[in-house]
Amino acid sequence: MRPHENEQANHGGHDRHRHHTSSGSRAQRARRLADMLRQQIVDGAFGDGRLPDERALARSLDSSRNAVREALDLLRGEGLITRRRGVGTQVVTVKYGHRLDRLTGLAQTLTDHGDLRNEVRVACLVPAPPASALERLRLDHGSPAVHLERLRRLNGEPLSVDTTWLAPDIGTALLDKDLAGRDVFDLIEETTGTPLGYAEITVHAITADHDTAALLGIPVGAPLFAIDRLTHLSDGRPVDAESLRIRADRLTLSTVLERGPRWTG
Amino acid sequence: MRPHENEQANHGGHDRHRHHTSSGSRAQRARRLADMLRQQIVDGAFGDGRLPDERALARSLDSSRNAVREALDLLRGEGLITRRRGVGTQVVTVKYGHRLDRLTGLAQTLTDHGDLRNEVRVACLVPAPPASALERLRLDHGSPAVHLERLRRLNGEPLSVDTTWLAPDIGTALLDKDLAGRDVFDLIEETTGTPLGYAEITVHAITADHDTAALLGIPVGAPLFAIDRLTHLSDGRPVDAESLRIRADRLTLSTVLERGPRWTG
Repeated sequence: MRPHENEQANHGGHDRHRHHTSSGSRAQRARRLADMLRQQIVDGAFGDGRLPDERALARSLDSSRNAVREALDLLRGEGLITRRRGVGTQVVTVKYGHRLDRLTGLAQTLTDHGDLRNEVRVACLVPAPPASALERLRLDHGSPAVHLERLRRLNGEPLSVDTTWLAPDIGTALLDKDLAGRDVFDLIEETTGTPLGYAEITVHAITADHDTAALLGIPVGAPLFAIDRLTHLSDGRPVDAESLRIRADRLTLSTVLERGPRWTG
Repeated sequence: MRPHENEQANHGGHDRHRHHTSSGSRAQRARRLADMLRQQIVDGAFGDGRLPDERALARSLDSSRNAVREALDLLRGEGLITRRRGVGTQVVTVKYGHRLDRLTGLAQTLTDHGDLRNEVRVACLVPAPPASALERLRLDHGSPAVHLERLRRLNGEPLSVDTTWLAPDIGTALLDKDLAGRDVFDLIEETTGTPLGYAEITVHAITADHDTAALLGIPVGAPLFAIDRLTHLSDGRPVDAESLRIRADRLTLSTVLERGPRWTG
């Protein structure tokens, strides 16, 4: 199936005259407009959280009202805006930007935005953890490990669920700490007296299964970040193997990348 | 609605005795197992791409076969594995890991994996681009801009669609270049004789609308990365404002984060 046969006729021979925002099918224009509007929303271009009406948006985006309406429908589907007759188009909430250029817990991103609490769902020493958790932590077969699962809420609203395996010597000391209020990274550094070194991070985009949807208060099928994060002490030992599931309607990941090699020193 | 009332009874009083993988509802166990298995698959733990059978997985993950089956169903839903009677559970393809610690085009990630081609869908100088594109590029109202849209295919399979606005002096020189075969970053550096400096990057997770689904050959509702990337020349001038939509069943974003400040120098 090649639904864009008509546009594909343009390959090679570049069409330099048609306007971008009026080229292609309405669905294509809506997709491009949605990307532009999402970026403007995240940049805070609509200071009071209210978007201009369709006519004004169509003018500033050099597009048709129909395509603008379809783009707004896409963003409503993402949970980014609400639209109500008489009220207009409102940004639901500014997304929280979690920085991906320095190792920080989510808490550091979120505490500026309100009251962050962790609901501790699991906190226990597991005598026989799964082999894969032991391997990631470079623990011998037969070693126990500490398992934590926390649901994070910002101002009462669930944002993420964080499932963690910790090396037993590190983790056991944390079980009596304030896991509801404190960042695990800070607790590890405090209890060990050793700074964390680095973390290997892999980011996936997935959709919410029934369990995650119920936990986070979102529809089944809503987009999530699924993040694997393996954190090492400064001596290189892996101590904290996490799986985070984060609501993608409330959080972005952001960074600044340099063109040169990362480490100049 | 609080569907996990039973587990929530554990707050505060930590349950140190139940096994992780056998605690909670089967859906919760399946979610945790899916996260562990996804991480193992991406790490290449199953060298030949075939997963052990359910019984063996249940043993190594210290879980029940039912929960393992449910976890495998979640991963099948993500497009990560296929399951067939007689053949077993196969990894569809290893996900390509795009590094987020240095500014590189996607091409640099992908060319190691096969034949990468860009289908040029739009390549034109637009006389009156949308105001938001001009603002990002710090161009005056009334300035033209160059618009590109390219669909990337690796070994014939569509992976991403990349919609770009370029400053007119930079972009016009690119219109006659090999946009089907070359990286835009490389082309900018070649034609300007100036190295790129840095890019501000924001990553969203969204689901595929009809247009993107048709372009990328994925179901409507499949997870995507939507990435805004604003790239600057080494003198700080923004020249390339992109919206990328990338199939999340084929690509991960990965990085290594240091605990200290990013720049030690």
